[in-house]
Amino acid sequence: MKHRFRPTRYYTALGPYEPVLRVNSGDTIIADTIDARGYDASGQQVSERGNPQTGPFFVEGAEPGDTLAVTFHRITPSRATGWNSAVLRPNVVDPADVRDFPEELLAHWELDIAANTATLADPETRLGCVTYPLDPMVGCFGVAPSRRQAISSGTSAQHGGNMDYRGFRAGVTAYLPVSEPGALFFVGDGHALQADGEILGSGIEVSMEVEFTLRLIKDWPISWPRGEDATSIFAVGNARPLDQALQHSTSEMLRWLQQDYGLDALGAHVLLGQCVRYEIANVIDPAYSVVCKLDKSVLPAKQ
Amino acid sequence: MKHRFRPTRYYTALGPYEPVLRVNSGDTIIADTIDARGYDASGQQVSERGNPQTGPFFVEGAEPGDTLAVTFHRITPSRATGWNSAVLRPNVVDPADVRDFPEELLAHWELDIAANTATLADPETRLGCVTYPLDPMVGCFGVAPSRRQAISSGTSAQHGGNMDYRGFRAGVTAYLPVSEPGALFFVGDGHALQADGEILGSGIEVSMEVEFTLRLIKDWPISWPRGEDATSIFAVGNARPLDQALQHSTSEMLRWLQQDYGLDALGAHVLLGQCVRYEIANVIDPAYSVVCKLDKSVLPAKQ
Amino acid sequence: MKHRFRPTRYYTALGPYEPVLRVNSGDTIIADTIDARGYDASGQQVSERGNPQTGPFFVEGAEPGDTLAVTFHRITPSRATGWNSAVLRPNVVDPADVRDFPEELLAHWELDIAANTATLADPETRLGCVTYPLDPMVGCFGVAPSRRQAISSGTSAQHGGNMDYRGFRAGVTAYLPVSEPGALFFVGDGHALQADGEILGSGIEVSMEVEFTLRLIKDWPISWPRGEDATSIFAVGNARPLDQALQHSTSEMLRWLQQDYGLDALGAHVLLGQCVRYEIANVIDPAYSVVCKLDKSVLPAKQ
Amino acid sequence: MKHRFRPTRYYTALGPYEPVLRVNSGDTIIADTIDARGYDASGQQVSERGNPQTGPFFVEGAEPGDTLAVTFHRITPSRATGWNSAVLRPNVVDPADVRDFPEELLAHWELDIAANTATLADPETRLGCVTYPLDPMVGCFGVAPSRRQAISSGTSAQHGGNMDYRGFRAGVTAYLPVSEPGALFFVGDGHALQADGEILGSGIEVSMEVEFTLRLIKDWPISWPRGEDATSIFAVGNARPLDQALQHSTSEMLRWLQQDYGLDALGAHVLLGQCVRYEIANVIDPAYSVVCKLDKSVLPAKQ
Repeated sequence: MKHRFRPTRYYTALGPYEPVLRVNSGDTIIADTIDARGYDASGQQVSERGNPQTGPFFVEGAEPGDTLAVTFHRITPSRATGWNSAVLRPNVVDPADVRDFPEELLAHWELDIAANTATLADPETRLGCVTYPLDPMVGCFGVAPSRRQAISSGTSAQHGGNMDYRGFRAGVTAYLPVSEPGALFFVGDGHALQADGEILGSGIEVSMEVEFTLRLIKDWPISWPRGEDATSIFAVGNARPLDQALQHSTSEMLRWLQQDYGLDALGAHVLLGQCVRYEIANVIDPAYSVVCKLDKSVLPAKQ
Repeated sequence: MKHRFRPTRYYTALGPYEPVLRVNSGDTIIADTIDARGYDASGQQVSERGNPQTGPFFVEGAEPGDTLAVTFHRITPSRATGWNSAVLRPNVVDPADVRDFPEELLAHWELDIAANTATLADPETRLGCVTYPLDPMVGCFGVAPSRRQAISSGTSAQHGGNMDYRGFRAGVTAYLPVSEPGALFFVGDGHALQADGEILGSGIEVSMEVEFTLRLIKDWPISWPRGEDATSIFAVGNARPLDQALQHSTSEMLRWLQQDYGLDALGAHVLLGQCVRYEIANVIDPAYSVVCKLDKSVLPAKQ
Repeated sequence: MKHRFRPTRYYTALGPYEPVLRVNSGDTIIADTIDARGYDASGQQVSERGNPQTGPFFVEGAEPGDTLAVTFHRITPSRATGWNSAVLRPNVVDPADVRDFPEELLAHWELDIAANTATLADPETRLGCVTYPLDPMVGCFGVAPSRRQAISSGTSAQHGGNMDYRGFRAGVTAYLPVSEPGALFFVGDGHALQADGEILGSGIEVSMEVEFTLRLIKDWPISWPRGEDATSIFAVGNARPLDQALQHSTSEMLRWLQQDYGLDALGAHVLLGQCVRYEIANVIDPAYSVVCKLDKSVLPAKQ
Repeated sequence: MKHRFRPTRYYTALGPYEPVLRVNSGDTIIADTIDARGYDASGQQVSERGNPQTGPFFVEGAEPGDTLAVTFHRITPSRATGWNSAVLRPNVVDPADVRDFPEELLAHWELDIAANTATLADPETRLGCVTYPLDPMVGCFGVAPSRRQAISSGTSAQHGGNMDYRGFRAGVTAYLPVSEPGALFFVGDGHALQADGEILGSGIEVSMEVEFTLRLIKDWPISWPRGEDATSIFAVGNARPLDQALQHSTSEMLRWLQQDYGLDALGAHVLLGQCVRYEIANVIDPAYSVVCKLDKSVLPAKQ
């Protein structure tokens, strides 16, 4: 079944809140999301800032210990302008590199959805009115966390949240560990384009129309968000500092290799040692996110 | 001019030591390197362990403030067997993941240079006798550091050293900041194959025959190692933790963009924010190494 | 007014939950707390494990932006036995130092409240039945966080939480930033004794009787927990890694010096540079805690 | 035997350089040191900046594997003025706290050795001409490192170096692991006063007259610097980030407890868990320094 959902309220934390829609496993939802500062497709501010989330969506039958699979079919900017911070965050450079800039200087971008491009409108720099191809993604999504927690949509943890990973684009299936009945799925904070690390503190922030299918997986427990696309599988660790995020992602991949691909621990170590790829998803949020990735071509047959 | 150099002694630190060969800018050297534990092409231990280095090579005319360009033409394993650690380092996983393994368990690989493959000989795991394509690289190379220091070939800093970056393969030109007269170039610690992060604590360690050209660049000061291949430019930051290594690499790239590509600081920030790629070269040495990379297609014209 | 509160339910997160008691500013509460694994004064398990909290207490008139002052008059173990982990956490030592120990090995202590001592009952080590003086403290306390979050009592942030600081003992007044109406104060996780860093992952865990006064301070905004005793003032930063926790605590102290002690920024810098003391409260929780402390003797007169 | 040594040249790295003086174990040396920027007792610049070191001193009979004990009898400022940076380093605060300050702003202090005080001469702040008691210390000292390395006097490692620990004051005995014949002891970078962390990037920098005894200890191997005074023993870990420095210091203390105090590993864990104190020596150098400390009153009898 396909649902068209138009939100009227938003949350700036992911927690055990009243569901806005109840769906069955296998259902598809087309939902609007607003930008990180609460502006919608028409340019109206409809929520406070801070990555306001659409949802939560309740999946019938989801229980703690299950896994929720989220397949993103389409992530489409729903307006023709986006913005981001223009200045690198102070923690990704030597301090002198940002000393002379104001703390908050925005860049604005014109988005041409048909042409699939973003063109810099301001500020004026020697880059000029540079144009880049879009690569839309969702910066923040997840389920209600464990322990009846409600965790800010500005950060991330085992439940997902603000991972700001450019690899969460259309075509990807994300996996999330269910902690509350119904899973309670949230999504928001779309970026039209973002590089590794989200080092400006934002991607090109824009409202989105997101189409995704929610599917329940019983008897497949996971500890951290995972994902999959046509060519790779990956696990995401969310923590500070980067070292810790990398540890979580690597250990989650070790579990996956032993759980599904018939490897013993030592075989999994050797495989990772020759083949692993890491991506720095974000290095600016309260929890950083590191992605541990394997090409499907190096994986043993699934068991 | 082309030199064929066969070393008779090795250094486990990069410092202002007596040169083994004096060459002119533009000269090419074919040199043997031995493996990380001091074993040569014939399987004899000819040095103590700890990434023993071939060199130093003195480049006529090199002065502090210059940059040394090293173009790697060929990095070829010089024997048919390699080894690496079989167990992930404790700092890249949750501690429980390595609790049950011995501290030092080696894997052995058979190398087929003609076929360009490595095949696992032992230990026995459910991976079986897996075969991977080779991707040879040099783990440690650099010049004598500043301040008359001599820095262990087990770690890295501004002068290069043990960066263990799989991107330092044939076809790449590396740039190093000269601190001592003659630059004093060292090279060693070849890996037949290694994934991101060198998370086993070693790649597939093997003796190598390395062919490279040393070229002096006047009036082009740099602060950290840089590199370039057909499709990308990159800067390397070496420090702990990963956050700090990432800062150094990003700041070095900012300098490069302003120095050579006509960008103002703000333009460089915006470009990196949309286009940067990071790679985790190593996350196990005393200094970790992070690579800040840009595709040449997004660079403004050189000026 | 003095209240005697005996809890019947407990929370393992600090959030905007239904208050168990409403009090006025200036009221004193004597409350029971149970130990980190949910065992009460009689040795019965009355809650799940994970630092179950007593509360929340609603303070009439408390509004977001206010500060809640909590003066601890008495923190008294309410039973004659305590426990802690016997083995150092893997992240505070070189990995080889904990390789040979089981993941979870407990030590048990006999507490003599009259004599104010803890005596080791087991395991048997060459320390023998060592006896230490008690120094009781509360490991976890705080108010409901901002953004309608509910944050696990296993970690800490701006709202307080599981800071595990041995300096939160009787005689201290703690200050907490109010984010929810009524402030919603929680307390639990008493330790009969704990060193710096809580490096075993626990102090000597025991149920407590805690007597404290809650007082509302209007027009004195703070960002992170602060504290004060007869001889010193301090600010607490909660984050990973230690560097980040230290940054938060130092910046909070800078604000305090300018807010209340008439200093300009530069004067505050110079004072800290000559006089600051840091304490590592905990280095094992998801957020570490660092304390930035100044002796009252070096403070300018309050203004 | 007592030597009076007046240096004529200085080193900005600690390495296997030509000794300036050869002494026997048990000899005492009175040596002059110059300040961190190379200015001597008469205010003349006699060396480049960067913690220029006095030495190296060769101790007859010292061999790799031995330990060198250095007892500081007296550390006396040798001129009446000192300086330090006036602004907190960017890594110890939130970035906004230092945005408005110049990168390098010095404070100057008048030192009254007889009265044992430092009085702020400039800049003008609301602190006024504040006066603090002196607590002189040596910021950088150590021996030649392992592997024939020469390591900058701006950083530190197992051999000692720029630990910037205010606890290295008169009355303390420091222990250093010998790696080169003769040990090759260096000393410099005196501070008339410094708080925890050296968070301004410098203490009150001044030239010193330092009196110390060098004593060789055979058959007592150590891995990291240790120290001892009348009331405590301590181990120093030097690394980034603070977490890593803390690990090294804790593991070194574990070794000491088992080596000399008759404890088994588990007993040492329990003792540290109840009794350890940590100090943040410096949090600004390329390697941070953390001190793991135990009061002698809690130690078992030496064996």
